[in-house]
Amino acid sequence: MLIEPQFRTKFADAVWGTMERLSRMAAFESALASAQAKVGLIPRSAAKTITQICNGPLPKASNVYEEAIVAGNPAIPFLKILTVSVNAKDSGATAYVHFGSTSQDLIDSAHMMALTKIADALDASLQQVASELRRLTTTHAETPMVSRTLLQQATPITFGLKAGLWGTAITQARQQLKVARINDMAVQLGGSNGALSAMAPHGPKVRADVAAQLGLADPGYCWHTLRSRVLTISAVLAVVVGVTAKIAGDCLLMMQTEVGEVQESFPGESSAMPHKKNPVHALVPVAALPLVATHLATLAGSQMHAHERAPGSWHTEWITLPVLTCLTLASVERVKEMISGLKINIPQMRANLALTRGTLAAEELVTTLAAGIARDEAHNLVDDLLKQSQNNNFSETVRSNSKVSELLTKEKIAEILGYKQTLTAAAREAQRLAKTINDV
Amino acid sequence: MLIEPQFRTKFADAVWGTMERLSRMAAFESALASAQAKVGLIPRSAAKTITQICNGPLPKASNVYEEAIVAGNPAIPFLKILTVSVNAKDSGATAYVHFGSTSQDLIDSAHMMALTKIADALDASLQQVASELRRLTTTHAETPMVSRTLLQQATPITFGLKAGLWGTAITQARQQLKVARINDMAVQLGGSNGALSAMAPHGPKVRADVAAQLGLADPGYCWHTLRSRVLTISAVLAVVVGVTAKIAGDCLLMMQTEVGEVQESFPGESSAMPHKKNPVHALVPVAALPLVATHLATLAGSQMHAHERAPGSWHTEWITLPVLTCLTLASVERVKEMISGLKINIPQMRANLALTRGTLAAEELVTTLAAGIARDEAHNLVDDLLKQSQNNNFSETVRSNSKVSELLTKEKIAEILGYKQTLTAAAREAQRLAKTINDV
Amino acid sequence: MLIEPQFRTKFADAVWGTMERLSRMAAFESALASAQAKVGLIPRSAAKTITQICNGPLPKASNVYEEAIVAGNPAIPFLKILTVSVNAKDSGATAYVHFGSTSQDLIDSAHMMALTKIADALDASLQQVASELRRLTTTHAETPMVSRTLLQQATPITFGLKAGLWGTAITQARQQLKVARINDMAVQLGGSNGALSAMAPHGPKVRADVAAQLGLADPGYCWHTLRSRVLTISAVLAVVVGVTAKIAGDCLLMMQTEVGEVQESFPGESSAMPHKKNPVHALVPVAALPLVATHLATLAGSQMHAHERAPGSWHTEWITLPVLTCLTLASVERVKEMISGLKINIPQMRANLALTRGTLAAEELVTTLAAGIARDEAHNLVDDLLKQSQNNNFSETVRSNSKVSELLTKEKIAEILGYKQTLTAAAREAQRLAKTINDV
Amino acid sequence: MLIEPQFRTKFADAVWGTMERLSRMAAFESALASAQAKVGLIPRSAAKTITQICNGPLPKASNVYEEAIVAGNPAIPFLKILTVSVNAKDSGATAYVHFGSTSQDLIDSAHMMALTKIADALDASLQQVASELRRLTTTHAETPMVSRTLLQQATPITFGLKAGLWGTAITQARQQLKVARINDMAVQLGGSNGALSAMAPHGPKVRADVAAQLGLADPGYCWHTLRSRVLTISAVLAVVVGVTAKIAGDCLLMMQTEVGEVQESFPGESSAMPHKKNPVHALVPVAALPLVATHLATLAGSQMHAHERAPGSWHTEWITLPVLTCLTLASVERVKEMISGLKINIPQMRANLALTRGTLAAEELVTTLAAGIARDEAHNLVDDLLKQSQNNNFSETVRSNSKVSELLTKEKIAEILGYKQTLTAAAREAQRLAKTINDV
Repeated sequence: MLIEPQFRTKFADAVWGTMERLSRMAAFESALASAQAKVGLIPRSAAKTITQICNGPLPKASNVYEEAIVAGNPAIPFLKILTVSVNAKDSGATAYVHFGSTSQDLIDSAHMMALTKIADALDASLQQVASELRRLTTTHAETPMVSRTLLQQATPITFGLKAGLWGTAITQARQQLKVARINDMAVQLGGSNGALSAMAPHGPKVRADVAAQLGLADPGYCWHTLRSRVLTISAVLAVVVGVTAKIAGDCLLMMQTEVGEVQESFPGESSAMPHKKNPVHALVPVAALPLVATHLATLAGSQMHAHERAPGSWHTEWITLPVLTCLTLASVERVKEMISGLKINIPQMRANLALTRGTLAAEELVTTLAAGIARDEAHNLVDDLLKQSQNNNFSETVRSNSKVSELLTKEKIAEILGYKQTLTAAAREAQRLAKTINDV
Repeated sequence: MLIEPQFRTKFADAVWGTMERLSRMAAFESALASAQAKVGLIPRSAAKTITQICNGPLPKASNVYEEAIVAGNPAIPFLKILTVSVNAKDSGATAYVHFGSTSQDLIDSAHMMALTKIADALDASLQQVASELRRLTTTHAETPMVSRTLLQQATPITFGLKAGLWGTAITQARQQLKVARINDMAVQLGGSNGALSAMAPHGPKVRADVAAQLGLADPGYCWHTLRSRVLTISAVLAVVVGVTAKIAGDCLLMMQTEVGEVQESFPGESSAMPHKKNPVHALVPVAALPLVATHLATLAGSQMHAHERAPGSWHTEWITLPVLTCLTLASVERVKEMISGLKINIPQMRANLALTRGTLAAEELVTTLAAGIARDEAHNLVDDLLKQSQNNNFSETVRSNSKVSELLTKEKIAEILGYKQTLTAAAREAQRLAKTINDV
Repeated sequence: MLIEPQFRTKFADAVWGTMERLSRMAAFESALASAQAKVGLIPRSAAKTITQICNGPLPKASNVYEEAIVAGNPAIPFLKILTVSVNAKDSGATAYVHFGSTSQDLIDSAHMMALTKIADALDASLQQVASELRRLTTTHAETPMVSRTLLQQATPITFGLKAGLWGTAITQARQQLKVARINDMAVQLGGSNGALSAMAPHGPKVRADVAAQLGLADPGYCWHTLRSRVLTISAVLAVVVGVTAKIAGDCLLMMQTEVGEVQESFPGESSAMPHKKNPVHALVPVAALPLVATHLATLAGSQMHAHERAPGSWHTEWITLPVLTCLTLASVERVKEMISGLKINIPQMRANLALTRGTLAAEELVTTLAAGIARDEAHNLVDDLLKQSQNNNFSETVRSNSKVSELLTKEKIAEILGYKQTLTAAAREAQRLAKTINDV
Repeated sequence: MLIEPQFRTKFADAVWGTMERLSRMAAFESALASAQAKVGLIPRSAAKTITQICNGPLPKASNVYEEAIVAGNPAIPFLKILTVSVNAKDSGATAYVHFGSTSQDLIDSAHMMALTKIADALDASLQQVASELRRLTTTHAETPMVSRTLLQQATPITFGLKAGLWGTAITQARQQLKVARINDMAVQLGGSNGALSAMAPHGPKVRADVAAQLGLADPGYCWHTLRSRVLTISAVLAVVVGVTAKIAGDCLLMMQTEVGEVQESFPGESSAMPHKKNPVHALVPVAALPLVATHLATLAGSQMHAHERAPGSWHTEWITLPVLTCLTLASVERVKEMISGLKINIPQMRANLALTRGTLAAEELVTTLAAGIARDEAHNLVDDLLKQSQNNNFSETVRSNSKVSELLTKEKIAEILGYKQTLTAAAREAQRLAKTINDV
């Protein structure tokens, strides 16, 4: 239990479980034999045997990963077991198991198959997050709250705008995931040295066929030691976790006792303090992000694969991708839970907005006054008003100032102090963003 | 001199120098005023004044970055100085400097402008690397050498195949860079809270216009705290460095005294040993990769920007992007130097291929024999031959074996021991790859 | 200007400036010649010449780092220039410049000299931070505030306890820095292969003497490719930045408009919003930490130095240590500024403590009641009281509850609701910690 | 199976398995109750009950980590189950379960207990590695081989010197591990806010007692959000992995077909190429290092724990420490296997040394000649000789040069070309290092 269940999902456990791992290796060998038979590289009967064996259960296969300790990789014991089974059925077919291929073809392609399955699962979960966020964006398009820059209250927005930007980020992440799914999750087939000599001149055709059978992209060349696609895919996973952490992080700040704007639907208890309502779901992406980020660095730093197969850099990927994807899946899952049950405290949002008693109108007041007097003068006037009010009752101070009354009508002053312009603009932007959030 | 010149380029120094930094900030303010005047948000005369000032030299601007120490960011002192200059020319125009915008718009957009300039420079250098590699691929399509997996001699390839795969990786990296250039290097414009309320209802139009003027993408929304594009761009830079390090790393291994297949054109001397011919250019990308990789992690881990502007995570980007891009530029520059002068020792490549005296034919021999006898039997036979030859004279051992002679003709045996199939396949693949290396 | 001045210090600029870099290399060569003359390895007259030249200005030395681009490292051009100067004075002495040494000895030792200077500067600044924190700990030993776990209000503490723990962390960091300064900042001397053959049998003695002259530790062996000390030192720097970021991070949270417990003495302005009081100093360590952390990873991941000198991994250190130390110095400097001027809002601390109207006493109430009734029963009773009060007026609800009144005296209830026990304990712990904060 | 068995050990699986995790939590609660009873904070009978329950099997405890998903941490469900069991035996004792403590005390202390167990296991394995290396150092003190800087042949050393430096690094790592074991692996006890108010005035005494019972250090204060010790310990683990990767990395380079100086005792087969002898053990530390390095960054970057308990940064540790320690254990285990069976090819070491036919003597030749003629002249003479010999037969060229014969005796020339001085020095240094390698 190197990763506690809190940071995993059942789906992640299954994808990286021995059974699915073996089943992906079998699917690769089956696809390879089938593709090779089609172009006449191996006999159809041998391909049929191999394919049949690969589609059934392999006896003793559960030891493959233990045997990799001495073999150096799991492909070698897997192929031994597969060959034994093939031999039992048709000894003539053994010569065509894994024909012209190499361990790396098998292991890389199997990893890519896992990634496509994960990408599809992530997309499905993110679609649900997007849907919830679209709903929140529309529902709260006009719910006023304060924006915060450098953790200081800035100017008024609406909660819909905040949710709309979260949703936009999810939509973007899904788009990037789709591109990576289509372009970068590719079959690896190069044989022992990248030239596919044993399959010549059918190599490229076999590669394309295997790719199609396994639902992978056909890269058009052997990428055994050109690993940019592993980095590109992982960067997208880091984007996904980044978005979930951004949303969870904002919520954690809004959940603070002194802020109190949102709460999880079933907050956690404390082992000691009965009054505590602890965030639970929100913790997961926030905890995962730093680890996902450094897993990305691991893969980026391990791009320098030596010659035609790297001792070390390649193996680093094997121990990086499972944890990286597991944390991504868990982050999305938990943000989905958090968002779908999020309790929103509208009165508290209003109360926080009112906390500085009109002070947040200072920027717009300067801008508006500067249409009539010099900007410097306007800025100094507002500064004086801020000082007079001691951040305590700015609205009142503004209203009773004769200079301001001279320059602006009562209605205009009321509009500014009521944050009309910015709330209207935020609501409009929220509605516009809602339309762009893809929830299908 | 935090980064020694060895790991910088003159171009990088200029892009991140004070002058170009200030000039980008001025260009942003100019574009903003111009765009706002077009839609009637600010007077045309004010825009004209601002634009004129921004296109000229700003007095005292060289202190901007020092003043940022107490201001918190360089935008604030920059805007003060700009306003003073505008005021000196047309006091009425001061109200329209940076109208409805905020520090982050200015800083983020200026960073993106730097990135586009860097992307263009990288593309130009990579194009030259691709051109050299295409040449090497064609020239050496048939130059035999050995492939190495896990640093062990594997099977024969040609140097053209190796160079062709390097070139393919460069082509791919350029393609990714182009996509990032077009999609992800975007203007930032959101105002104090993301709603562009002071520019309503012209906000989106102004944003698109500013983007067009600055040669940036129009993101269509405010990304002040949605930072995935910073990560996506940086991941592509890491891909670029990864490719250069892969090429340099392979060359470092080939430069080993015991391998001796390539050499830099002007190798370095040793401070102590007169006989040394040290790699110089190759060191740079290999040294840069681990740092570029962790800079990527820094950006990935800093995606959780709090609310509408992050205290810390945002500032982390400022100190990460310059070094990251500088190291990328230096890596490409130095690999370009290395590749364009690379001395290739063809006889030594042949000598290394002959080192194990035919042993590398073992795989193909098994495969060929397995057409006639059971694969197991073929494998065991070749294993015996390997043991007999003690990895010393496999060719001779094979030729004089009666069982082999029974199964294969002399011509076939000669072909296998001469690596005909794999060398032919490698040459063909090299020629095919050469055509796909984009060097324009 | 790869790193903006906001994240540097003048001291850092000087230490990594060309002049101090050259001066350290000269000091190394001077110490080496001097030590070698003492044991009779080189003539005293030659040593005298070398030492004199090294203590004066070297003509043309300013180009050394530019020349490193083609030489591969700065030691080679430096030694050429040094030899020219020595030759001009005493041609016979040139044979004894850098005698039996190698580039790596010079570069590694010079880096270590920089690190000792930085360690001393850091210690001096940290001492001032500790002194301020000790003062705050004592002054505010009894200033009540709320503790926060998972950003939820937990139980009352005093600000002195918080400051006392910050100070304890600074004291610990200084202690670790001292150990690294004494044990790990060591001279490197091994010659071309680690055996110091040209200095035999005086190698170890020369190494010890050079170490002593340069204020470095004598490692007792050649660590040219055993780099753990670089990692160990850097880990301590990361601890230092971690502590400053912890302090700054807590302050950033306390500076939030809704919390308002502390403020910087000269907060930053906004480029748009006149009412903003932005944190400035606090941003620096918070921005630096993620980059310092990944620089540490870079060094940790680069420990695998090949054979007797690494192509790449070694050079990575050169570009990592300057930025890493620069960010460390800036972080400490800025936290010192922040802490020394920190405005503490005691009434607001009290107001936040009162926000949940007694609710924070729930834990102690359970514990106290559980002395008289079953713990389960006590827990359920307090849960009921929390629900009745709706987190709104827990104190009142408790006081008017008959069951509670039955079990506890009025005085005991008042004590619990007045947080007497925990505030007393926090004050006592603050006073105890104050004594352990080393500010000398 | 997020981490494949190849990169784990049985010991790591057990330490982080549910059973040992629960058992550590139970041990903490037992120690706490026992310590509290001793000072009279809780009744002795209650402590006895708690201790007894903690030392036995806890029913339903296997679900604790699943329940943490909704509880937020495993301490809460663990304590519920523990309380149920205590209640069944003595309902009065339930009030004293986890008395005055909090989830973080339990979780942090349990993690530290795991770390001590791991440190002890690592030390035992490293001791065996040191013992083997000490043996190799002595046995091969005089076995000549070539040193390599920047992967170019430098000057002669002995294999004993190389092994001796490896062993020295292991000894140093063990020493650092011991310091971390004693100083940094400390109990965490602070209660809900760090003041241990419920245990006042006995808090410090209880903490010391609990520490002693659990074999942990007594930190003397509450470190709930001061996490430097986690970083310090992890940095030492990274040092351990760094040393193993350095050794394995050198061996991988020496295993290259073209170098052939060492081999694993049972090299791996290839799935395709019968002649391959692949490294297996050596891959593990080399693959693990980049991931261990970035796990260290994760912990360094997560030091900024908010207030009195961090939402996220704390939880990041939970998912970082198990994988980090698992990879450390596996790296040491596999290097132990590799070293204990390492096949050393002495003739090949000699052959590689002879490869450049005397060229490696160039440095010493210059130094020796420079005693008689100007250094410049000596350098130029040797350069000429190198050019004449075309790196092909330097020895012969030197011997037949009249200028050299004039300056040096035949015996001296033979000594230099026989590498006498450097081989003697290397052998002496190897013997000296052997004595400092601690293998007990």
